[in-house]
Amino acid sequence: MATINSNFLKLKAGYLFPEIARRVKAYSEANPDKAGRIIRCGIGDVTEALPPAVVKAMHEGVDELANRSTFHGYGPEQGYEFLRQAIVDNQFANLGIEADEVFISDGSKCDTGNILDIFGKGNRTGITDPVYPVYVDTNVMAGNTGDANDNGAYEGLVYLECNAANGFVAAPPCDKLDLVYLCFPNNPTGAVATREQLEAWVKYAQENDTIILFDAAYEAFIQDSSIPRSIFEIEGARDVAIEFRSFSKNGGFTGVRCAYVVIPKTVTGKSESGERIPLHRLWSRRHSTKFNGASYPVQKAAAAVFSTEGKEQVAALIEHYMGNAKLLRETAQALGLQVFGGVNAPYVWVGCPAGLTSWDMFDKMLEEAQVVITPGSGFGAAGEGWFRISAFNSRANVEEVCSRLKALVS
Amino acid sequence: MATINSNFLKLKAGYLFPEIARRVKAYSEANPDKAGRIIRCGIGDVTEALPPAVVKAMHEGVDELANRSTFHGYGPEQGYEFLRQAIVDNQFANLGIEADEVFISDGSKCDTGNILDIFGKGNRTGITDPVYPVYVDTNVMAGNTGDANDNGAYEGLVYLECNAANGFVAAPPCDKLDLVYLCFPNNPTGAVATREQLEAWVKYAQENDTIILFDAAYEAFIQDSSIPRSIFEIEGARDVAIEFRSFSKNGGFTGVRCAYVVIPKTVTGKSESGERIPLHRLWSRRHSTKFNGASYPVQKAAAAVFSTEGKEQVAALIEHYMGNAKLLRETAQALGLQVFGGVNAPYVWVGCPAGLTSWDMFDKMLEEAQVVITPGSGFGAAGEGWFRISAFNSRANVEEVCSRLKALVS
Repeated sequence: MATINSNFLKLKAGYLFPEIARRVKAYSEANPDKAGRIIRCGIGDVTEALPPAVVKAMHEGVDELANRSTFHGYGPEQGYEFLRQAIVDNQFANLGIEADEVFISDGSKCDTGNILDIFGKGNRTGITDPVYPVYVDTNVMAGNTGDANDNGAYEGLVYLECNAANGFVAAPPCDKLDLVYLCFPNNPTGAVATREQLEAWVKYAQENDTIILFDAAYEAFIQDSSIPRSIFEIEGARDVAIEFRSFSKNGGFTGVRCAYVVIPKTVTGKSESGERIPLHRLWSRRHSTKFNGASYPVQKAAAAVFSTEGKEQVAALIEHYMGNAKLLRETAQALGLQVFGGVNAPYVWVGCPAGLTSWDMFDKMLEEAQVVITPGSGFGAAGEGWFRISAFNSRANVEEVCSRLKALVS
Repeated sequence: MATINSNFLKLKAGYLFPEIARRVKAYSEANPDKAGRIIRCGIGDVTEALPPAVVKAMHEGVDELANRSTFHGYGPEQGYEFLRQAIVDNQFANLGIEADEVFISDGSKCDTGNILDIFGKGNRTGITDPVYPVYVDTNVMAGNTGDANDNGAYEGLVYLECNAANGFVAAPPCDKLDLVYLCFPNNPTGAVATREQLEAWVKYAQENDTIILFDAAYEAFIQDSSIPRSIFEIEGARDVAIEFRSFSKNGGFTGVRCAYVVIPKTVTGKSESGERIPLHRLWSRRHSTKFNGASYPVQKAAAAVFSTEGKEQVAALIEHYMGNAKLLRETAQALGLQVFGGVNAPYVWVGCPAGLTSWDMFDKMLEEAQVVITPGSGFGAAGEGWFRISAFNSRANVEEVCSRLKALVS
């Protein structure tokens, strides 16, 4: 009889967002009169239409497939050259990244999960707390952890606590990590790391032979020009870091699906025999064997994000969402709540009113204000007592959320 | 220092198709005058335009994303209900499959590779020989094998030899397997399994508690109504089988990317503590955590395959490709070569002329006839001495391939 991967049984009942969806559905069914009033600021999903330049390019891509003479079947597993080059030219100019170090995929969730395929067992892995749950859950599935304790923390992972005292940016630990996940601008806290903080991490990685898995899915939201957008802006990062990027939150591709991983050829891990092996070679093999390229019209659409019109339209989208973030942030601050994020990130991270846990606040917001937020504790024990509000919404909805929040808290 | 997954180092130098691409590129560069003459019948990639109904639906899907009021962000990870239901209604009517047992993805290559995530270690796994290389390579990556021997066979896998004597359909073995990969219509041999042969496999699976991983990516090419299109046409299969399907080869989605897995809730594997766990639950968790749904316009396009116009247009595509298969098959037969497939499958599986290995024949066809085929030995040791010709081409190209083959062999 076939054995299953019993590591799956260590996972908590639900991935955070399905659990939120379940509670919202139950509330809606029990309160049909209120269901239409619900405003969703929970899942970090964009709400505005695709930029016109993207729409045009995607239509053109479809039309190419509609004619035999311009038809494209299987594309290169690693992505079309036109997109890989556009990414390098527009996102990594002068950072020493080559087009063949960019691997196109159908999403950062897939990439940040699948990346563990190329690593061995026994790595000492650091994650921040709170953290994007995919990093944790995929480590559990891969057998890199023991069971979870009562706080939901898994044995075998090294949790780097982020809190108000460190501004939700963890410093490198004193002891040695083999792998560390860093995400800036951060999901869920909206924190960003300064150049000095990232330099400290790269220095740590060089000294400890650590690989940094750098998730920059939200880089487009950085407003402050002194904040690095890529880990590769830091000297030496090419030897120790790989970076995850996405079109989900700049071009609004959450339903379109396109992302990429940058793996410099100089980043290496150790084989069982002690040999240094380039991660680029392993990921290339994994990508060729377990992935078959992103959809052609989608890759065309992604490249249009970097056109002159595309850049202007994306900038307008970002401005819209960051206007929302500002409103949410200022409203929460005016209510005397503790607030982080919302300045260089589309997430506002708010301390719950005294005495409320994160899920208490989730239920209160849902039941009394019909607003869906994300409970901070869903991102880890250190998120307890906090909640995340997403700025991905219409301005009208955000204004409404602000007034409901005022009515609820004040 | 991070350890890598050293299992990757057991893999042979190149996945088959990149190796073919490498040789074709080298030949083209060395013979620029001949490069324009090359006809590709190697990789099993469709060549004809998308059906108009699919094009229309995909454009409509893009237009929905172009307007805020009809915008879709993240969809359900398992796929939209409209597509899951259309699949059940059109592909599994009266077979007892429910819509929530269908998981939409971006490709069968991904699905057949990723499925190993939910299985444990130590399973005794059967694969046919020759075989689609992804099944083997992903088992190697997952650490389910030892090293390869000189024939390219990996220690720890059970190879079920397919040959001219058994019509390239393996019978169940005498001993016990925990997992077995079956692919009908077969890639690469084009063989199909009769109802009786599939009944024998399901009976074997019931008696031995084996899980059948049934790859039916090519079911649309079955012409003979007595041949089952789905393993779920066999009584009892719901308890022992999961099935992989794709839109690549019916709707021509190789560049569009859409596929699905059917996992009945009744199929179970054993946990470490000996408990029977439904695979459906595990795959659902995997899909929610490491995948974020297929592209929305792509799912719209896939659903259009089942519209009245879509079905007619797909039928015309299949008829076109099967007309090609007939020509290739009859030409090879007339030359006195051994031929399998090409009747209910888009692949024609041909014995090499006396004295030639598969790669000899590949090189000969490339260098002397400028036709790219796939060497049978690339699919496993039992494929040595055979080659695969794909019927995915224009009629004119297939006719040209037939005349070049005649000139070369006769």
